[in-house]
Amino acid sequence: MTESQDFPFHHRLRVRWTEVDMQGVVFFGHYVTYFDLAMAEYFRAMGRPYPDGLVAGGGDLFVKKVDCEYFGSARYDDLLDIGVRTARLGRSSLTLAVAVTRDGETLAAGEVVYVHADPESRQSVPLPEDLRASIEAFDAG
Amino acid sequence: MTESQDFPFHHRLRVRWTEVDMQGVVFFGHYVTYFDLAMAEYFRAMGRPYPDGLVAGGGDLFVKKVDCEYFGSARYDDLLDIGVRTARLGRSSLTLAVAVTRDGETLAAGEVVYVHADPESRQSVPLPEDLRASIEAFDAG
Amino acid sequence: MTESQDFPFHHRLRVRWTEVDMQGVVFFGHYVTYFDLAMAEYFRAMGRPYPDGLVAGGGDLFVKKVDCEYFGSARYDDLLDIGVRTARLGRSSLTLAVAVTRDGETLAAGEVVYVHADPESRQSVPLPEDLRASIEAFDAG
Amino acid sequence: MTESQDFPFHHRLRVRWTEVDMQGVVFFGHYVTYFDLAMAEYFRAMGRPYPDGLVAGGGDLFVKKVDCEYFGSARYDDLLDIGVRTARLGRSSLTLAVAVTRDGETLAAGEVVYVHADPESRQSVPLPEDLRASIEAFDAG
Repeated sequence: MTESQDFPFHHRLRVRWTEVDMQGVVFFGHYVTYFDLAMAEYFRAMGRPYPDGLVAGGGDLFVKKVDCEYFGSARYDDLLDIGVRTARLGRSSLTLAVAVTRDGETLAAGEVVYVHADPESRQSVPLPEDLRASIEAFDAG
Repeated sequence: MTESQDFPFHHRLRVRWTEVDMQGVVFFGHYVTYFDLAMAEYFRAMGRPYPDGLVAGGGDLFVKKVDCEYFGSARYDDLLDIGVRTARLGRSSLTLAVAVTRDGETLAAGEVVYVHADPESRQSVPLPEDLRASIEAFDAG
Repeated sequence: MTESQDFPFHHRLRVRWTEVDMQGVVFFGHYVTYFDLAMAEYFRAMGRPYPDGLVAGGGDLFVKKVDCEYFGSARYDDLLDIGVRTARLGRSSLTLAVAVTRDGETLAAGEVVYVHADPESRQSVPLPEDLRASIEAFDAG
Repeated sequence: MTESQDFPFHHRLRVRWTEVDMQGVVFFGHYVTYFDLAMAEYFRAMGRPYPDGLVAGGGDLFVKKVDCEYFGSARYDDLLDIGVRTARLGRSSLTLAVAVTRDGETLAAGEVVYVHADPESRQSVPLPEDLRASIEAFDAG
């Protein structure tokens, strides 16, 4: 299981009433929204706010794959910590690792794979060098 | 309370798991989403699907006001009927009346006021005559 | 239009990607969710977190009515301020006034009416005196 | 890529306005909600509506893992077909395969792994034999 200290960036949020289901726990799909929120804050903290700071130069980032594994259940009003780091930088792809924790207990963890591609043709395009450099510098602390 | 038979159009939907809160009832804000879904189907049935069929000619419809009164609670898996009609046609505004019923029992009812305006200046613009005619013909049955 | 300084409590939030529609503005129904979020924080700040701190003693608070008027459009990443105050305290009802502002500009404002009732019979029950006292003290600052 | 004809069950739905983002496509996280909706209908069609028909006998089904791969983008008003089948039946786990298609084109496909466990201890418990039999009979057609 991913350790909290492995993440160069953490976003904190409080579970909303509308995110909790009739069993009193956060609906499993909403963790993917939490991933998205934390990834947006990760890029903002890097000085590359989504979408404009992130995808200058013609290409765009498309989500290619997401997975999430569940280890526990978040409840209404819980304060969650969502850690984000870049797990892999490919030629034209970018994989973020994300973990949702509460008081140090990992509730969910997963990865989101982005492909950098031409918005028209959807052909992959190499990641811009300056984005690559920003990510590496940010994750190195 | 609005009677079900007053509506020229009815949209049916099933309550989703993600719309029900930890008290086992649909979150009150989601009724506004139900209103929106049913209004979109109302305009589609009229031959004026939102947004393109509805707002040709330069103006656009902006929501100016919404209200909703609650009389009961929808639950998971409930089959709901959402009635829609145009309650008022102003010079540049359009008020829809909407009611959410389950087996003939009204659970919620309200109105949505749209203003037809210029997207840039936000100055109100008279409703197109053909839209007015479509609505009057549709509601007259 | 409600003035920002009229509110004893303000909750700040950032507009999420998932709350913005294809016209680049927050879907009108999501303002009701913003109302709900801010009201929950209002009661938490009062020392009466929803639901347990709010509804001891057998009765429960049910939303009876909501209305919202729109004056502008929130966009992705906007930082919003949501002001909350109790507008009316009835024998068994409670009306909250809420306004959503961005940099001092009011984007939406409305009211939410709660009725204090028996969860089984849905008959209204007088508001507990201590809740009434908490609200009056909190709003008086 | 999963072929549409591989699925014993299909659920159809129309993309909602609130599910589309400012780039005009369905937010990637909402596909997981589509999975959930279709899985609920799959079990309903099987005569085992979630949650009561599914989890009698003390155990409950918990989502352990979800993954989704994206091949295209759904847009506002699209009519989607969501195919569901049971991909694996373990001793105490259940894996559903799901694919979202539009006019025969696969837009997204993935799997959801459920574990059958004791709600208190979260220890895994063998799947009830009658649930196993229902699933096998339903998927065999």
